Amino acid sequence: MESPTTRRKFSPSLENIRMSPIVLISEEARARAEAFEASGKTFIRFQRGEIDFPTPAHIADALVEGVAKDLTRYPRSGGEDFFRRAVVERLRRDYAVGDLDPENVVAMYGGQQGLELCFKLFSRGAGFSPTWSCVLENFVPHAGIDFEEVPLNADFSIDFDRVESAIRGRDFFYLNNPQNPTGKVFSRDELDVITELCTRHGVFIVADEAYERIVYDGLEHQTMARVQQDNVISVFTFSKTFAMTGWRLGYVVTRNEHVAKLLRLGNYTQTAGITTFLQYAGAHALTNHSASESAVHSMLDEYTRRRDTLYEGLRGLSGVHIDRPHGAFYMFPNFTDRIPARVRGAQRDRWVYEHLMEVGVATVYGSCFGKHFGDNVRLSFSATPVPVVHEAVDRIRRVFS
Amino acid sequence: MESPTTRRKFSPSLENIRMSPIVLISEEARARAEAFEASGKTFIRFQRGEIDFPTPAHIADALVEGVAKDLTRYPRSGGEDFFRRAVVERLRRDYAVGDLDPENVVAMYGGQQGLELCFKLFSRGAGFSPTWSCVLENFVPHAGIDFEEVPLNADFSIDFDRVESAIRGRDFFYLNNPQNPTGKVFSRDELDVITELCTRHGVFIVADEAYERIVYDGLEHQTMARVQQDNVISVFTFSKTFAMTGWRLGYVVTRNEHVAKLLRLGNYTQTAGITTFLQYAGAHALTNHSASESAVHSMLDEYTRRRDTLYEGLRGLSGVHIDRPHGAFYMFPNFTDRIPARVRGAQRDRWVYEHLMEVGVATVYGSCFGKHFGDNVRLSFSATPVPVVHEAVDRIRRVFS
Repeated sequence: MESPTTRRKFSPSLENIRMSPIVLISEEARARAEAFEASGKTFIRFQRGEIDFPTPAHIADALVEGVAKDLTRYPRSGGEDFFRRAVVERLRRDYAVGDLDPENVVAMYGGQQGLELCFKLFSRGAGFSPTWSCVLENFVPHAGIDFEEVPLNADFSIDFDRVESAIRGRDFFYLNNPQNPTGKVFSRDELDVITELCTRHGVFIVADEAYERIVYDGLEHQTMARVQQDNVISVFTFSKTFAMTGWRLGYVVTRNEHVAKLLRLGNYTQTAGITTFLQYAGAHALTNHSASESAVHSMLDEYTRRRDTLYEGLRGLSGVHIDRPHGAFYMFPNFTDRIPARVRGAQRDRWVYEHLMEVGVATVYGSCFGKHFGDNVRLSFSATPVPVVHEAVDRIRRVFS
Repeated sequence: MESPTTRRKFSPSLENIRMSPIVLISEEARARAEAFEASGKTFIRFQRGEIDFPTPAHIADALVEGVAKDLTRYPRSGGEDFFRRAVVERLRRDYAVGDLDPENVVAMYGGQQGLELCFKLFSRGAGFSPTWSCVLENFVPHAGIDFEEVPLNADFSIDFDRVESAIRGRDFFYLNNPQNPTGKVFSRDELDVITELCTRHGVFIVADEAYERIVYDGLEHQTMARVQQDNVISVFTFSKTFAMTGWRLGYVVTRNEHVAKLLRLGNYTQTAGITTFLQYAGAHALTNHSASESAVHSMLDEYTRRRDTLYEGLRGLSGVHIDRPHGAFYMFPNFTDRIPARVRGAQRDRWVYEHLMEVGVATVYGSCFGKHFGDNVRLSFSATPVPVVHEAVDRIRRVFS
């Protein structure tokens, strides 16, 4: 039966969420991959943020142990004590942040729920463009907030005047460091200026530190959790660091007690806490330092090889501007000088993407990451072994040489 | 540093969530329990909805298997195929519902996230009073909706005229069956009338079927998932059926494709899907029918013994009206004739609760479950072995004989 309710409009907080174009891209890629692979050719999935490493065995073992310990009762609101203590301990060990206690930590289903709830705290936000597509498609409409995109310069440096004029009268600034899709790692100086500007204007900083451990060239990630101010909220996840994307485990750190309380209430309302034995395994990943570091470094070595292969392979390609990514596992080259001026609008958005898809290289077109940088594409090397990266370089060079 | 942002107001969707009085009760109970147990006496925790059984071993084993299979990559939006197929199969097997397919199923973190997102679809709702406290304290303020409580009659029967006048112009009716806190199991006839009324008025039904398998006296749960209409949404959870409260796994079933799509988007936005290997274990719980039925029946036998001990022990207590619960693991007796007329307001709300706490029996006072039934208390026998229930009966009889 079709009742009169069938075609009604529901709440804008759900109706306005957009299906990510990346889903569409994945479907196109799947269809294209079949054709390629049927004719014996490799199809290169540079569109995905998925990781091709398994979760390190000591973390999976800890999960099994947690279940064996019957940690199957209702979780504690905000996170189990052992989990929050493990977070406090790791921030002290990894970043010399020594003033936090477990009440500053709220367990979440991934960085995702942490960010989603942070966005829901506020009504007006801003953040750099380009930005992680989920921010624009999901968090902003779900929270029903107004969000201003502040473009980075073409070389991904910051125009601080633009930042300052954008944040005036706003509630928060979203800061993803290392950054998806650019691979930019913000320097301590840049972070200090952003912090000073936000604090002066009474603006919160929501720091998305998902890629904290994927940093190259000997650079050190500068966590915002070191900033001893109550206008700073840092969001962390196990997904990227420990190849745990399907586990959905993360946490928020803030010295603002009221914000921590609201995030606990929001988390309780949405999911009644976080699966108890997931927290047990997560705590183990944080405290079993030697096993975890060894796993993290081995993955980082492999990401480094892929990054170098991709960057060294494509640099110098005429009319293609490539910034060497220092973090995350993305490269975001610009093709403005290669796209004919007559190609405009939606066609322009997909021009590079289509040309690369033709040769069996799936990417994500720049307009997925916001209003600016439509002439860029994102190449992800998170799930692509070095020989495949070599093959990708050859194909891309053939198209754009 | 305390910035100007410290004491600002955040979004009402988080600021208006109330801390459950049950949390306060649990704290009072903890303090009281220490004193009791220090003097060698049992403290009886009738306030909890927690379960004292471990998760059945075959489900825990399936989790371990899922992790061993490296099911650790990003979950599929809406749920893994194997999970959704298992749900379709179980609804066919358990309730002879044969027209569903995997697209009608959306995996969730518990019934909690399913309900939270359902409430978020709408702006005006109604539901029976008394009701699960989380509805009033969490889902309603988080979704920012208007919600009318429709009182059941004193014997928990339904005044359908009140239902009809309450739902006019509203978007949905929340229906928890079997019901927390009354233990009421709605009859097929009652459900048919509610369905007819809602459908005639263009109102959705959000059916919370968390206690579907905890039904006594040979009654059969009537799932709303059998109603082939697109204004019906059923929410299920593994928590109560399989003693998996800490796993946080559940699912929503609806024939309304647009609603299913919005729930998938909402789930993706909040948590980016559901932990992949949790779904693997959940699917196993649904499809390994003989092992699961044996576990469910053994728990149900024990709940039945507790229910009988409690009900037979307290029935006939002068001035205490007790409806024999046919489902869930709660009893919700009324003490109107025992509370002195002069006792009013907040003092009246806590009168029975305080008297029982004095003798070491923690309960939840009726006002936690809404505007009506403030003279009732909820006794939960979900985590209390039969000898302890006997002891509770003795103590309650001493107070109210």
